[in-house]
Amino acid sequence: MTLSSFHPPVRTLMGPGPSDVNPRVLEAMARPTIGHLDPVFVSMMDETKELLQAAFLTENKLTMPVSAPGSAGMETCFTNLIEPGDKVIVCQNGVFGGRMKENVERCGGEAIMVQDDWGKPVDAEKVEQALQDHKDAKIVAFVHAETSTGAVSDAQALVALAHQYDCLAIVDAVTSLGGSPLKVDEWEIDAIYSGTQKCLSCTPGISPVSFSERAIAVIKNRKTKVQSWFMDLNLVMDYWGSGAQRSYHHTAPINALYGLHESLVILQEEGLENAWARHDKNHQALKAGIEAMGLSFFVDEAHRLPQLNAVEFPAGTDEAKVRSELLNRYNLEIGSGLGPMAGKIWRIGLMGFASNQQNVLTCLGALDAVLSDMGVEINSGKAVSAAMASFSA
Amino acid sequence: MTLSSFHPPVRTLMGPGPSDVNPRVLEAMARPTIGHLDPVFVSMMDETKELLQAAFLTENKLTMPVSAPGSAGMETCFTNLIEPGDKVIVCQNGVFGGRMKENVERCGGEAIMVQDDWGKPVDAEKVEQALQDHKDAKIVAFVHAETSTGAVSDAQALVALAHQYDCLAIVDAVTSLGGSPLKVDEWEIDAIYSGTQKCLSCTPGISPVSFSERAIAVIKNRKTKVQSWFMDLNLVMDYWGSGAQRSYHHTAPINALYGLHESLVILQEEGLENAWARHDKNHQALKAGIEAMGLSFFVDEAHRLPQLNAVEFPAGTDEAKVRSELLNRYNLEIGSGLGPMAGKIWRIGLMGFASNQQNVLTCLGALDAVLSDMGVEINSGKAVSAAMASFSA
Repeated sequence: MTLSSFHPPVRTLMGPGPSDVNPRVLEAMARPTIGHLDPVFVSMMDETKELLQAAFLTENKLTMPVSAPGSAGMETCFTNLIEPGDKVIVCQNGVFGGRMKENVERCGGEAIMVQDDWGKPVDAEKVEQALQDHKDAKIVAFVHAETSTGAVSDAQALVALAHQYDCLAIVDAVTSLGGSPLKVDEWEIDAIYSGTQKCLSCTPGISPVSFSERAIAVIKNRKTKVQSWFMDLNLVMDYWGSGAQRSYHHTAPINALYGLHESLVILQEEGLENAWARHDKNHQALKAGIEAMGLSFFVDEAHRLPQLNAVEFPAGTDEAKVRSELLNRYNLEIGSGLGPMAGKIWRIGLMGFASNQQNVLTCLGALDAVLSDMGVEINSGKAVSAAMASFSA
Repeated sequence: MTLSSFHPPVRTLMGPGPSDVNPRVLEAMARPTIGHLDPVFVSMMDETKELLQAAFLTENKLTMPVSAPGSAGMETCFTNLIEPGDKVIVCQNGVFGGRMKENVERCGGEAIMVQDDWGKPVDAEKVEQALQDHKDAKIVAFVHAETSTGAVSDAQALVALAHQYDCLAIVDAVTSLGGSPLKVDEWEIDAIYSGTQKCLSCTPGISPVSFSERAIAVIKNRKTKVQSWFMDLNLVMDYWGSGAQRSYHHTAPINALYGLHESLVILQEEGLENAWARHDKNHQALKAGIEAMGLSFFVDEAHRLPQLNAVEFPAGTDEAKVRSELLNRYNLEIGSGLGPMAGKIWRIGLMGFASNQQNVLTCLGALDAVLSDMGVEINSGKAVSAAMASFSA
């Protein structure tokens, strides 16, 4: 075998995640590894919990990073809250609602599906109808920010509806945390999961979660054991709990947590509301450029996420070639459509550290050049100046 | 909130893991993040699979890193191979056999326990008796290298026994991979999991696994869905599979995989057998020093792991104070006993990059000084020279 060290190219990451990682995060991850029970590490865990509470705007004690990617964070919520036979209202308006259904069923629950068109927000009226039809439902689950379409749903209203019918609310905030308004306590969310590789500007692999007291009571009063040992919060709580009761569960991914800690410090330095405003400002500039080019957005303006821009292209465009040209000529990654959206949209991420003026201009300039060279009909030469004008406004 | 960046102290990690990380691994982890579907990343995934096959000494196609710590690697093996009602012979001679029982039961299986004293290897005769008593058993599961005691079991013999009774064998190799002989194909192991934070000199957070064709056939012919979506190998295989069929499952922990790749390159550069010999040589020197000090080993010499040294101390020693003095005065971490072994042994790791001459001498010198200062009765001043003599032999 003649394999040698791997040296990745330097890309600009404007897909659906991972997004550009703040160099401070990479530097933090390269710091010396210490033991997962070292008192110094334990202090860092406590700080990380506090920083995550600040990012989620919650005082939930059970707020911590799951030692695995966002899909494991999702499963942690479902596997801890669902017992066999439980009815769960699952709202689907994209790929990740479908994954919620898979999770419910694998936990032995029954998923009552509320379907909305992809690219539309979850319709509260349909959810209320489902709650009326299924008075014995225990949970309402929905995606706050659909990464597959770029649509945002009204989390506050949906949680209120769930509570009105005495249900818990599980919320997917993988793409929203750090990028657009998300208020766990004010909106009274019971269980929420996110990812590190989107608007936190961190590397992928960790999933921040938070649970309300109401959710913890449900977990503590389960009649059956949680089917996953690795994800069982009754066990994990003892490891991420307060100093006295801390006991070994699994070996925490030390250096990945250094990275998360640093990314959360950076978020606090900027301020949550400033981060949200920055995401919006860069989205407005990208939008000005995209529209000046003659392209359009897949999601209605009222329900559009600033951090995940689903852009439609002229029929017949060899979209895969466009993405490959952007990658090879400009080291620029944008995302394809996922599932049924493949071949219909691009997903242009402006997430976390990647949400900056330079990326907006690079992306517009590169897209203009590649589309023009490929003979795709656009208003060439307009995009960058339109974005510039938006930045100056 | 006034939290600032986290700067860990520089420790010498000689506990049960994480062990000292090779600086090349830390450097690799700080390289620029690229997309998880980037063609360059996909090539690196293919290389990582090949490197893992070389480390496991297997040609198993389904050899890959699970995107979570070793306990998730364990659960991946159990949750994919067990269906409700399956009987599993679980051998327990330490903490991790007990965790296997938990896994079996949470998958709806029945665990037939074969108990051995902690610190002893798994007794093949008892396993054979269990196989005769339970002809309908489907799986035999055991720990190759018990991290809680430092005892190694005869994996080859136990797997042969399992096959003789038409059972699959699941093997825990968290602490053995890269540190002492482990031959997946030659020993015909069906399912195996390990961790990155022991003898691979990598940071914690990833679990290498490998499955034989026989195991894959069982997974593909399941009557029920795997209860974990995140760990379902039918789905993960499509992501870690061959180029043509590669499809999105979850977002891989990009930078953590850079680290694993580098650690596996380092292992190949040294050569597996050389790495095993190095672990043995450093263990012999530590042993010479420990014995010269008048302390003894918990495990019989014939079944002792070179990478995990369980050392007994004089009755009445304030062992927690010893460890805390080692940490505070020498930045040296050694491990306590786990579970029922707490207060009875220390676990001194000589794993991967941490298995070196300098660490052996540092540990012996520091231990001698701390024990003497605390008035614990030992043969002071003998340990380092005994180790030196062993190195020169």
